[in-house]
Amino acid sequence: MSSSDWIDDAVTEVAAKLHNCNRCKLRRKTRKGQYCLPVRKAIHDVLDTLIGILFPGCHGHGPVAENQTGDTLQDEMKTAILTLQKQAEMAFEYQCELDECAEDCDDCEIKATDAVRYLVKTLPDVQEMLQTDIQAAHDGDPAAKSAMEVVMSYPAIQAISTYRIAHLLYEKDVPLIPRIMTELAHSRTGIDIHPGANIGQSFFIDHGTGVVIGETAIIGDNVKIYQGVTLGAMSFPKDKEGNPIKGIKRHPNIADRVTIYAEATLLGDITIGQGSTVGGNVWLTHSVPPDSKVSNAQPDPEIKT
Amino acid sequence: MSSSDWIDDAVTEVAAKLHNCNRCKLRRKTRKGQYCLPVRKAIHDVLDTLIGILFPGCHGHGPVAENQTGDTLQDEMKTAILTLQKQAEMAFEYQCELDECAEDCDDCEIKATDAVRYLVKTLPDVQEMLQTDIQAAHDGDPAAKSAMEVVMSYPAIQAISTYRIAHLLYEKDVPLIPRIMTELAHSRTGIDIHPGANIGQSFFIDHGTGVVIGETAIIGDNVKIYQGVTLGAMSFPKDKEGNPIKGIKRHPNIADRVTIYAEATLLGDITIGQGSTVGGNVWLTHSVPPDSKVSNAQPDPEIKT
Amino acid sequence: MSSSDWIDDAVTEVAAKLHNCNRCKLRRKTRKGQYCLPVRKAIHDVLDTLIGILFPGCHGHGPVAENQTGDTLQDEMKTAILTLQKQAEMAFEYQCELDECAEDCDDCEIKATDAVRYLVKTLPDVQEMLQTDIQAAHDGDPAAKSAMEVVMSYPAIQAISTYRIAHLLYEKDVPLIPRIMTELAHSRTGIDIHPGANIGQSFFIDHGTGVVIGETAIIGDNVKIYQGVTLGAMSFPKDKEGNPIKGIKRHPNIADRVTIYAEATLLGDITIGQGSTVGGNVWLTHSVPPDSKVSNAQPDPEIKT
Repeated sequence: MSSSDWIDDAVTEVAAKLHNCNRCKLRRKTRKGQYCLPVRKAIHDVLDTLIGILFPGCHGHGPVAENQTGDTLQDEMKTAILTLQKQAEMAFEYQCELDECAEDCDDCEIKATDAVRYLVKTLPDVQEMLQTDIQAAHDGDPAAKSAMEVVMSYPAIQAISTYRIAHLLYEKDVPLIPRIMTELAHSRTGIDIHPGANIGQSFFIDHGTGVVIGETAIIGDNVKIYQGVTLGAMSFPKDKEGNPIKGIKRHPNIADRVTIYAEATLLGDITIGQGSTVGGNVWLTHSVPPDSKVSNAQPDPEIKT
Repeated sequence: MSSSDWIDDAVTEVAAKLHNCNRCKLRRKTRKGQYCLPVRKAIHDVLDTLIGILFPGCHGHGPVAENQTGDTLQDEMKTAILTLQKQAEMAFEYQCELDECAEDCDDCEIKATDAVRYLVKTLPDVQEMLQTDIQAAHDGDPAAKSAMEVVMSYPAIQAISTYRIAHLLYEKDVPLIPRIMTELAHSRTGIDIHPGANIGQSFFIDHGTGVVIGETAIIGDNVKIYQGVTLGAMSFPKDKEGNPIKGIKRHPNIADRVTIYAEATLLGDITIGQGSTVGGNVWLTHSVPPDSKVSNAQPDPEIKT
Repeated sequence: MSSSDWIDDAVTEVAAKLHNCNRCKLRRKTRKGQYCLPVRKAIHDVLDTLIGILFPGCHGHGPVAENQTGDTLQDEMKTAILTLQKQAEMAFEYQCELDECAEDCDDCEIKATDAVRYLVKTLPDVQEMLQTDIQAAHDGDPAAKSAMEVVMSYPAIQAISTYRIAHLLYEKDVPLIPRIMTELAHSRTGIDIHPGANIGQSFFIDHGTGVVIGETAIIGDNVKIYQGVTLGAMSFPKDKEGNPIKGIKRHPNIADRVTIYAEATLLGDITIGQGSTVGGNVWLTHSVPPDSKVSNAQPDPEIKT
């Protein structure tokens, strides 16, 4: 007993300090006395549902009679839409408070509806793009036993599906949620695709752990990259207060039919010409013409004595 | 209210489109009116149970009286076997439909039983191998405080345990499931070991994030590799239709007592002779003799002006 | 039916073998007839709660009235403390058995209380440090839309929060638990920070997958590192039995205001002088003076013929 007397005192004292963190207060915004922040768990659930319905019958279900999958899919989609709409509204409200917008502007709900409608309407196009990505994986990896193995187990499909969904919300300027989605895929797959990137069809990332694709990267069709490849930024201009200027083009442009091997680091607003191959572990901060081959020298072995 | 009128219409229209995706239909196969696909969640549970019983008393349990662990272990093993058998049967049935095999061949159940029996019978050997892997981690990492710390927290043990289990199912040609297992470990640890690889005893992967070990890689005894090491394939022959020919030997052979430092990329059917050391960030596509030392040159520092 | 007759026999036989694994027995220790090992799930829950209360109102909750968050925070903190105390006690008891300490030494409870009190008392300092880390992320990444986006989605914040908590338990020599905590963050983020490392304020890890920071690494203030950077050890002295000597300084020292780009591998007890920049994919095993710039040469492109 006596040994735990300290707990109540400590909890009272420390909890008060933590709760009064000034910087936290500045950031968390309340609206009508409630915190308005989207809930990560709800967004994760929406994302998983959307990925599930993009591959009907392939994920997470036990055996289902074929003629029932259509109904299940409709129910799941409706639930996901309603949740996402609510979360998007909270995200816009958070931004609204942060920007000290008028409290009764009512735009948040309108913006949320607009973004979610756009996403839902575009889902069939996303599905079609993803089919080209699956094909690219099957064609590009001799270890793939079947297209279904790709769908059910390849991390690239998880990461690219998530990116293609999050990108639609990014296009509609939804705060917080696109990045929460891609960071869930990042956590699960090690593949970090910023929702702002632009990526063509038949895109394949093999293995994928450590891949980084930055916000302003542009990737053409039939591009194949391996684990640990970075399409990143190097330096960026700052404003008069020393803050980085947001939104400037600062990431690579990868043309059609380029292959980039493992652990290559490409930084800056450079262009890799179509049909080029970049070898593993290359460090590259300038453009290369079409059909280039760029490779590190290989060190000669010394024999230990 | 009015703002959500669009939802029902959109759901009906979009769900129908998604459900009718032609390529999806080609892939998902039905048998007697039901989808026959293994369920990822069930396979994940089986894998976690099997790993738990390979380290009796070390994972996931609260305090248990010592004389009870034997019974618990039997119950858990039985549940895992029954689930795995059902899942393996569904995996074989899926492949059967894909190969347009006769519908009443009955081989699927027999193949599933054979694979699961083989796995169960071999578990004690797997346990023995894993004990050498734990020892290798404890001997090879000055940060390891105790062998139990290795068992309870090292990602390498999770990844190698999973690989050694999945490899047994791969040997028995079980479709889909081996890769679903190793991709779960990949997701959790960042270590991507294809179930087809062949790996000797006392194998240690330190840290591990980004490690890739390809399907036809062969690794001897007492090998130690660090995070970001790739044992991958570079190019591979294609058939007349331009599809990659599956099953060809295309990954490295790592002989006994080799150490490979972080982020080295080794590609192709090359051999790293026994006792060799490969430095970090090396790009290597040819063989090196025994007792080699292969290292990148280190750049000289320039002083900023 | 007949096809599953084998299961009961196999379970009995194989379970007995697995349960009697000699090496396992040596490791799992019993005290008064019960296994004494902390439970990973419980430690994960404690960690998530502690991270939640360090960012009051930002994680995992639905909308909460502002005047209620203080109470919620107190309740959550108390639950976490009680659980952690019990787990820490079990961890000390495990070590006690392993060291063949006298069974009635009673020190385990005292040590556990001391460690947990220290952690709780220090939480406000941890919160303050984390605020500098959040600011560093916001200042150092043009893609960060708001500080809240950093808090809610950046893996670096998850990994650094976990490290700063686990480090306090490491300072108090709590067995097993600090590493279980940092390995949870490693699993989720790909960032592997050993709880023993020493890290200054305003620390930012961008993207982060594959980062390794070793046990005796020392990092100053305002340091920024990118994905795949290793601050590791190369070789280490062994004792007469060939076991690695634990606790020797063997990892890099990174001075203030250093930036290290993606996939650079820095090994050994070397010093990177303040204000230096290390380029991507560099392999470095010696010290460099302040204000250095260290970069790999970039290969020239060949045009494919």
